[in-house]
Amino acid sequence: MGKMQDLPLSTVYQLLEPGPVVLLTTAHKGRADVMTMSWHMMVDFEPPLIACVVSAGDFSFAALKATKECVIAIPAVDLAPKVVLVGNCSGRDVDKFETIGLTQLPAKCVAPPLIAECFANLECKVVDTRLVNKYNIFVLEVVQAWSDPAQKHPKTIHHHGYGRFVVDGETIKLKSKMP
Amino acid sequence: MGKMQDLPLSTVYQLLEPGPVVLLTTAHKGRADVMTMSWHMMVDFEPPLIACVVSAGDFSFAALKATKECVIAIPAVDLAPKVVLVGNCSGRDVDKFETIGLTQLPAKCVAPPLIAECFANLECKVVDTRLVNKYNIFVLEVVQAWSDPAQKHPKTIHHHGYGRFVVDGETIKLKSKMP
Repeated sequence: MGKMQDLPLSTVYQLLEPGPVVLLTTAHKGRADVMTMSWHMMVDFEPPLIACVVSAGDFSFAALKATKECVIAIPAVDLAPKVVLVGNCSGRDVDKFETIGLTQLPAKCVAPPLIAECFANLECKVVDTRLVNKYNIFVLEVVQAWSDPAQKHPKTIHHHGYGRFVVDGETIKLKSKMP
Repeated sequence: MGKMQDLPLSTVYQLLEPGPVVLLTTAHKGRADVMTMSWHMMVDFEPPLIACVVSAGDFSFAALKATKECVIAIPAVDLAPKVVLVGNCSGRDVDKFETIGLTQLPAKCVAPPLIAECFANLECKVVDTRLVNKYNIFVLEVVQAWSDPAQKHPKTIHHHGYGRFVVDGETIKLKSKMP
């Protein structure tokens, strides 16, 4: 578990465009934290730009605003119970990594940790904060990406509200001109 | 087909948070157009705010920027072949509704049409354009939402790049404090 391999930045959009639930790690004042996040989208292909919403009420908000660094970690369906636990408590009260059982790995370009159990990890820097005050929208640039070669065909989860998740089903391939 | 019912605005986020491929309609200079879109996210629950990326190269970009109105229509998997056709041609060259076979329905609060074949339609107004010039990011407010009661359990499609779509699979329910 957790032997991460370099992932080409040009392929990052293929991971987030489908809209999976992700985990977002931050590090602030000597301590790492993690939250769940479903409100994110791709903004550009390469360098990969991402927009995401981190609520001002979330413990991670202050860390992200102050440090301008985060890691987006993508969990497969086997991690769904832990993903929900991450969403159900606050870093104000507990060390979520320890309590829930998620393994930190050092990142290469940012201070927040990768998550060893996730099949992909995206090291990000905040590049635009103009919409933070009004909408809590951060624009991020992915500066380094990793994937776990041991997780061959990960199925992601997609949140429909109130703990109801839809898991990836069959794949269809249609003739398309779109990247 | 296409008898749309009022959908409570408080439930709109549950449709987009999972990250489905959607269609976006615009109307400009007396003509409606439609494009496919995967780069979108929820920004707030109620009133529902959405951010999306419409590339400056897309024919829809000028219409959205000028009229500040659009409809986000959500197709189920049976429409996947038409969704790809919509993405493979430009409104510059053809009337996509007629060529591809999608039925326009009048919206209530905006000029762009609903799409009768889609299981949900969200009438939107552009409320923030500060990130349009640099990132093509529009912030939208949903002012009216519709769903088709005849489509009971629609499965959506999620784009992984180059015409590869993953279809909704099984649903799991976990005990969560999150909305």
